[in-house]
Amino acid sequence: MKRRLLLVSNSTLHGGGYLDHCQQHICDFFGKDVKRVLFVPYALHDRDAYTKTARNKFKTLGYEVDSIHEAADPVAAVGGAEAIFIGGGNTFRLLKSLYDNKVVTEIRRRVMEDGIPYMGSSAGTNVATISINTTNDMPIVYPPSFSAIGLVPFNINPHYLDPDPHSRHMGETREQRITQYHEEPDTQSVLGLREGSMLLVEGNKATLLGSTKARLFSREKPSMEYDPGSDLSFLLTDTH
Amino acid sequence: MKRRLLLVSNSTLHGGGYLDHCQQHICDFFGKDVKRVLFVPYALHDRDAYTKTARNKFKTLGYEVDSIHEAADPVAAVGGAEAIFIGGGNTFRLLKSLYDNKVVTEIRRRVMEDGIPYMGSSAGTNVATISINTTNDMPIVYPPSFSAIGLVPFNINPHYLDPDPHSRHMGETREQRITQYHEEPDTQSVLGLREGSMLLVEGNKATLLGSTKARLFSREKPSMEYDPGSDLSFLLTDTH
Ligand SMILES: [Ca+2]
Ligand SMILES: [Ca+2]
Repeated sequence: MKRRLLLVSNSTLHGGGYLDHCQQHICDFFGKDVKRVLFVPYALHDRDAYTKTARNKFKTLGYEVDSIHEAADPVAAVGGAEAIFIGGGNTFRLLKSLYDNKVVTEIRRRVMEDGIPYMGSSAGTNVATISINTTNDMPIVYPPSFSAIGLVPFNINPHYLDPDPHSRHMGETREQRITQYHEEPDTQSVLGLREGSMLLVEGNKATLLGSTKARLFSREKPSMEYDPGSDLSFLLTDTH
Repeated sequence: MKRRLLLVSNSTLHGGGYLDHCQQHICDFFGKDVKRVLFVPYALHDRDAYTKTARNKFKTLGYEVDSIHEAADPVAAVGGAEAIFIGGGNTFRLLKSLYDNKVVTEIRRRVMEDGIPYMGSSAGTNVATISINTTNDMPIVYPPSFSAIGLVPFNINPHYLDPDPHSRHMGETREQRITQYHEEPDTQSVLGLREGSMLLVEGNKATLLGSTKARLFSREKPSMEYDPGSDLSFLLTDTH
């Protein structure tokens, strides 16, 4: 298994600029061999503006950005990519566009078989998992399936938020929402990545990085807290 | 058009009991002629416990509750109902169950043609509208469509929440989420019902009730605030 993944909870941390909080991890992850990164801006409506933002940031880190929406043939663009970065926005719009452009299978193949590095942020992290069942986003469009690229066999909840004991709002807390997911049969573990945290996957090894703890929710088990630096490789075994 | 609807933002208001904040409106809405209300508990996992909660509350208001999940034939239960109440929970689970039990069309027929009163709360309000595209819930299951019962030709966002200027969380605000919906073509107006508010529809007349204002979002137009008591009948014309 060649896969290499950097799955980031959020692209911007309060008070910082775009991808600032994880820029050192991005450079470590793509390394010196990667020159060009294929960017997927499908999660936002204005793909040109989004590409400009990503291109400017990656240039400061020493990488050129090609956007998949500028390519005549998206599948060929994935086929020839050295590395992929899928940005955040609306997860439903993103997944629908990935299916509409028929790149889901090709991204999986390039990452799992060819070993090209995959970075995702927020919605781009959701679609890297088994399914988008644990996104926080509003279902503004109807994708043909909630099954996603499936680079890891579990779910992630990005922007994980602890319950606010002072809230007077009666909508479900994030924890209650994930509990509802686990009331359904055959549902996978959900890694709640708080803002500031990210998961690095190299082959069959998974490590929590960043500045915040993560919370793991598993069906019919108590939830667990993990510190940055924790080895979460057990999540990569299908039987977990 | 005989339709009579009471579409409530939330079933419980902070500090109060189940349906306390709208109980007078419930009695006014169902009136003296209705004796039995058909309850739909599909949005929560424990349908028995949920039915008990609804049954106990409605008993104090003078109504008997039959639950659709206790009926041998759900379509026949809808066919014979005097009134319907769909409770809140997870909107995706609710809509999928409505489709799985083949009651979407029959509920629409009974309400739109026979004029039986329909009350919804939270997820039960979402499914009464044109689609569930503007629910806040987590997509824990995949329904066969986001199209809903369609008792009104627009969308509602229940539990509407104003942006918190002190928040350090970087997930989208509710307003940003609704804006993303309106970036998509042919999307309907979204009535943001804050907790404490509800919409009463009688035929072609719609009135905002409750203790909080509502905010209306329309595609390519500025959003608007409406006070309790406002006439929102213009939302019922398909051309809005
Ligand atoms: Ca998002
Ligand atoms: Ca809900």
